[in-house]
Amino acid sequence: MRISELGRRSGLPVATIKFYLREGLLPPGARTARNQANYDEGHLSRLQLIQVLTVVGRFSLASVRGILAAIDDREMSLAGLCAAVNDALFAALPPTPDEPAEVGRLRGQVDECISRLGWQVDPRAPARSALVQVLVALRELDDQFDMDYLAPYVRAADRLSAYDIESLSGETATEALASAWVARLVLFEAAFTALRALAQEHQLALRAQGGIGGSHAE
Amino acid sequence: MRISELGRRSGLPVATIKFYLREGLLPPGARTARNQANYDEGHLSRLQLIQVLTVVGRFSLASVRGILAAIDDREMSLAGLCAAVNDALFAALPPTPDEPAEVGRLRGQVDECISRLGWQVDPRAPARSALVQVLVALRELDDQFDMDYLAPYVRAADRLSAYDIESLSGETATEALASAWVARLVLFEAAFTALRALAQEHQLALRAQGGIGGSHAE
Repeated sequence: MRISELGRRSGLPVATIKFYLREGLLPPGARTARNQANYDEGHLSRLQLIQVLTVVGRFSLASVRGILAAIDDREMSLAGLCAAVNDALFAALPPTPDEPAEVGRLRGQVDECISRLGWQVDPRAPARSALVQVLVALRELDDQFDMDYLAPYVRAADRLSAYDIESLSGETATEALASAWVARLVLFEAAFTALRALAQEHQLALRAQGGIGGSHAE
Repeated sequence: MRISELGRRSGLPVATIKFYLREGLLPPGARTARNQANYDEGHLSRLQLIQVLTVVGRFSLASVRGILAAIDDREMSLAGLCAAVNDALFAALPPTPDEPAEVGRLRGQVDECISRLGWQVDPRAPARSALVQVLVALRELDDQFDMDYLAPYVRAADRLSAYDIESLSGETATEALASAWVARLVLFEAAFTALRALAQEHQLALRAQGGIGGSHAE
């Protein structure tokens, strides 16, 4: 198909598609004339994936590039693909603040929690540092805060991940399926965020009826 | 304190602080001379919140502006604050694609799920549309996909939100506490994302030991 049809079918402006081509996020089409190229279904699904990553996942173009490289790497394992998506989630985290003792103590809590759960995780996994940084920030808000507080989150993460990985099994034999797998990881995360927003709205409605809460000026 | 000390204590370059001042995200300091102003602890905590929102929450400046306006609005309820944060999460979602019948059917599934749970949620809540859009995208990947698939996510969202709202109760009497409340919502979301990444890494390690999975080239 021509670039105009690719635009129509993807719902994206042609200028955006040309930008992705220039940035190397979308592979070039098959040249048919000096100023014309042909695009196929692979280009369309790559554009859909880029949309999922940038719009739903809110990833930077640099993160998208990293994830696409992982998808295109035919030697990449499922674990590698998953790590590429998760690394992109934590790519922009700021450096840890300079309170080494407090940071060390919270890192100890994270390590202890992971080892008690028996989770097999790389000691240098970016998500491990991300969790420590989030704990440091929570601690600045509330000096009573520690890892125990997150126990319900830990259980939910454990349960949902087992469900995700089981339901995704056996579906990554080709580049197209690797791409679908990455899109699913991002979309499940977005679905959960939306469900959580709805559940919070409901909980706050319940509270308001109970007469608690209300204006924060009161 | 001078802007240089604000920079040192927040860990942010002075140029970034000046940018936030120009953009109106940070209120001006008390002018002490023609080219000098004094900043206080309120400025420091506002900068910390902006960092949490932009870096951890990956929100755009437009979204940050909306959230800060909600915090500064002394008439804003807890539910309003929570809605402002959640709306920012879904601000950039693309328009729904043009397959009205399919979209209507999936919207029906979402509505039915919410009503079965007894969740009190605005019919126009952005999270409701966001969930429909995520379902549409998941459906494009897998035409077997429907709302039932998300049942474990629904249960987790319900449980965690009840826990969040309960643990945040009674803490929003002032602008400083409204600000802390918003930071917590964003940080809990980030903590869960990190925990989920760790749990996924573990699940994939288990799978690899079972001989399933492996390279997606095989």
